Amino acid sequence: MSIIAAPREPAPETRVALVPEVVGSLVRAGHRVLVESGAGTAAHHDDDSYTDAGAEVIPAIDLAAVDILAHVTPLPATALGRLREGAVTIGLDAPLDDDERLAAANARRITMLAFERLPRTSRAQAMDVLSSQALAAGYRAVLEAAVRLPRFFPLAMTAAGTVPPANVVVLGVGVAGLQAIATARRLGAKVSANDIRPDSAEEVRSVGATFIDVGLDAAEGTGSGGYARSLGSSAAERQQAALAPHIAAADVLITTAAVPGRRAPRLVTADMVAAMRPGSVVVDLAASTGGNVEGSMPGMDIAVPSSRGGGTVTVVGLASAASDLPTDASRLFAKNVANVVALLTGNDGALVVPLDDDIVAGMALTHDGVTRDREGRPVTAAA
Amino acid sequence: MSIIAAPREPAPETRVALVPEVVGSLVRAGHRVLVESGAGTAAHHDDDSYTDAGAEVIPAIDLAAVDILAHVTPLPATALGRLREGAVTIGLDAPLDDDERLAAANARRITMLAFERLPRTSRAQAMDVLSSQALAAGYRAVLEAAVRLPRFFPLAMTAAGTVPPANVVVLGVGVAGLQAIATARRLGAKVSANDIRPDSAEEVRSVGATFIDVGLDAAEGTGSGGYARSLGSSAAERQQAALAPHIAAADVLITTAAVPGRRAPRLVTADMVAAMRPGSVVVDLAASTGGNVEGSMPGMDIAVPSSRGGGTVTVVGLASAASDLPTDASRLFAKNVANVVALLTGNDGALVVPLDDDIVAGMALTHDGVTRDREGRPVTAAA
Repeated sequence: MSIIAAPREPAPETRVALVPEVVGSLVRAGHRVLVESGAGTAAHHDDDSYTDAGAEVIPAIDLAAVDILAHVTPLPATALGRLREGAVTIGLDAPLDDDERLAAANARRITMLAFERLPRTSRAQAMDVLSSQALAAGYRAVLEAAVRLPRFFPLAMTAAGTVPPANVVVLGVGVAGLQAIATARRLGAKVSANDIRPDSAEEVRSVGATFIDVGLDAAEGTGSGGYARSLGSSAAERQQAALAPHIAAADVLITTAAVPGRRAPRLVTADMVAAMRPGSVVVDLAASTGGNVEGSMPGMDIAVPSSRGGGTVTVVGLASAASDLPTDASRLFAKNVANVVALLTGNDGALVVPLDDDIVAGMALTHDGVTRDREGRPVTAAA
Repeated sequence: MSIIAAPREPAPETRVALVPEVVGSLVRAGHRVLVESGAGTAAHHDDDSYTDAGAEVIPAIDLAAVDILAHVTPLPATALGRLREGAVTIGLDAPLDDDERLAAANARRITMLAFERLPRTSRAQAMDVLSSQALAAGYRAVLEAAVRLPRFFPLAMTAAGTVPPANVVVLGVGVAGLQAIATARRLGAKVSANDIRPDSAEEVRSVGATFIDVGLDAAEGTGSGGYARSLGSSAAERQQAALAPHIAAADVLITTAAVPGRRAPRLVTADMVAAMRPGSVVVDLAASTGGNVEGSMPGMDIAVPSSRGGGTVTVVGLASAASDLPTDASRLFAKNVANVVALLTGNDGALVVPLDDDIVAGMALTHDGVTRDREGRPVTAAA
C-alpha cells in the first residue's frame, strides 16, 4: 500500500493528475489516495466524485505523509522540500535543468519521475503523457481553426449549388499532427500534410491526407528515437520554398512541429502567412516553445494583413491546447499516471523504485540524492 | 438587361447579398452589377474581386438608378423611398408587418420580394435562403458547442485506454437540426434527436442518429407546409418530461426548434438545464426569437450552476450563427438571390415581375402600391 496524492494545480492549469475513475482503480489496488479539495474543479471533476471513488478529499495535503505525488505542472522547489525523504513524484518537469528544483529534490532524496524522459518503447506507450496530451492538442487545434474560419470545413450542398470543402495544411505529423489531420478530415476538409521524417509520408496517406513532398532526403529529417531533427539552414530554406505554394492555397494551416529539448523549428515566415487569403486561419501549436510560425504569440490571436489585400489572416498561438479540454485530457493523463504507479508497487504492495526497469530508470530525473541523465548516469550539478 | 445592386450591410451583419462568383454569372447573363465599396469586406470578398468579376464598385449606390436591389438585412424605409418607381428588392424582410417600410415601398410602387415568403415547393428550393442559412447555422452550432466542451467529441483511443465519445442531443430537426446532427456525427459524437413532426423520426435515423420518441401523435406535431406547429400545453409538458432524462445524460444539447411567424417554443426549462453535468454545453439557435431554452440570451454565454454541484452548465445563445460563417453563408445567399433574379428577366432581358409565377407571387410582400398576403390578396394597412 502506498499513499498517493494529487494537489490542486496552480492556475491557469485546468487539468488534474488524478481523476475519480482512476482513483477508484488505485483504491481497489490497495492504495490510499489523497486529493486536495478543489483539485478537479476546473476539469469538472468535483470533490464529491473523488470521495465517491474512495479518495480522502482534504483542504491541504500533508506532503510529509505522501509516498507518491502525482502532478501536471512542475512542482515548486518548496513543495519538493516538504515531501518525506525518499518519496516519488510523477508528472511533467520541464525544464529538466532547473537547478533549484533538482537541488530541493536531491536534498530530500526524492525520485522525480519526469514524463518528458519516458523511453520511446512500446511498453511505455501506456504511460505516454506527451502523446495523450498531444492527442487532445491536435483535436483542439482543428476546433480553434474551424470556429474562426468564415467558411465551412465540409463541402456544403444546397439546391442552389455547392461550396467546396476547406483546404487544410498540417505541418508536423507526430501524434498532434495526425490527430489534427484525422479531425479535419472528419469535419470534411481536404487535408495535405508534411513532416521532415521520411516515414511520415506513409502515415499521412494512411489517415487519408495528401503528403506534401518537400524533396529532403532521409538523413536530413530523422533524429534519434524516431523524432524529427533540426534541419540545416539550406535544407530549411528548401523546405520553406516547397511549402510556400501549398500554404498560400490553404484556408487553414496547423503547425505542430517540435524537436525534443530544443526551440521549435521556424517553418513558416511572416511573408508566407501574408500570402494567404484574407479570412484564412493559422494555428501554431508550438507557439509557447518558440513558434513554428513567425509572429505567433502564445495565447493570442494576431491579425496579419494579407498581401492580397482585402483583410487579414488570423494567427492563433495555442498556449495550452490540452488544458482547453481539461475533463478528458485529465482522464488520459491520470490513466498514464496509474500505469507508472503500477511499476512502483512491490510484492507486498509497498513503494519500490525499480531502477532496473528501463521505464523507471529513463524517467528518473533524480534518485537517492543524485541527478541522472537519460541513460541513468549521474549528472554533475551546474555550479 | 437589369441594373442589379448590393449595398454594404449595416453592422453587425457580416454577410453580403452578392459575391464575386455570382456577380460573374449575372454579368455574363447581360446584367449590370453595382456593388457598394466595402460591401464584402466582412465576408472576406474584397472590392477588387468584385471588380475582377465585372461589377462596378462605387462609393455610394444611386438607388434611383437601380432595377433590383439585393440585400441581407431588411432595408430601412429611407432606402426604399429613394429607389426608382417600380424597382424590385430581394432579401430578408422580417418582421413582415413593419408599416413604415411597407408604406415607403408602396409609395414608390416597389416590389419587395421577401425570402421569408418563399413557397415551400421543390422548384423554390434553389432560392431558399432560410434553408441555406440554416445549413450554416446548424454547422456553426456544433462548432460553438465543441469548442466550449471540456471533452472530446470523438472516442479517444490511447495505449492507456479509451475515452467514450460525447453524447449530443439535438431538438428540432429542420435543415439546421439535420446539419447539426450530421456535423456532430462527423466529429464522432453519439447523437440522438427529436422533433415533434412524426416524419422526422425517419429523417433522424437516415443521418445516423437515434430518434427520441416523446410519444406525441401525428396530429399534434405537424402544421402547414411541413413545418412544426405549436403544441398545446399538455402535449408540451409531456414532451418536456420525455426529453428530461435524455438531456440530463447529454454532454451537449443543441436546440433549433422554430415555428414560422411565432415565438420559438420553450422546449427546455431551467431545471432541465441545471440537471446536466457540470461542463456540459447548451447551444440555443432560437435565442433571438424567444429561445427554446429558458434563460438563454442572444449573443451571450450564461453559466448555470449544475444541480449536481461541482460547476456550471454553459448556455450559449447564438444570435446570428450564419453571420459567423460569412464567406460561405454569403456565397449560398447570393446563389439564392441569382436564382430569383433569373425569374425577373423577360425575353428581351428587361426587368419583369411575373405575378403568375407562384414563387414571385408568394414572395411579393408589396407590388404596385399594394401590400399582399401569402396568397397574393391585398392586405389592408393597419390604421
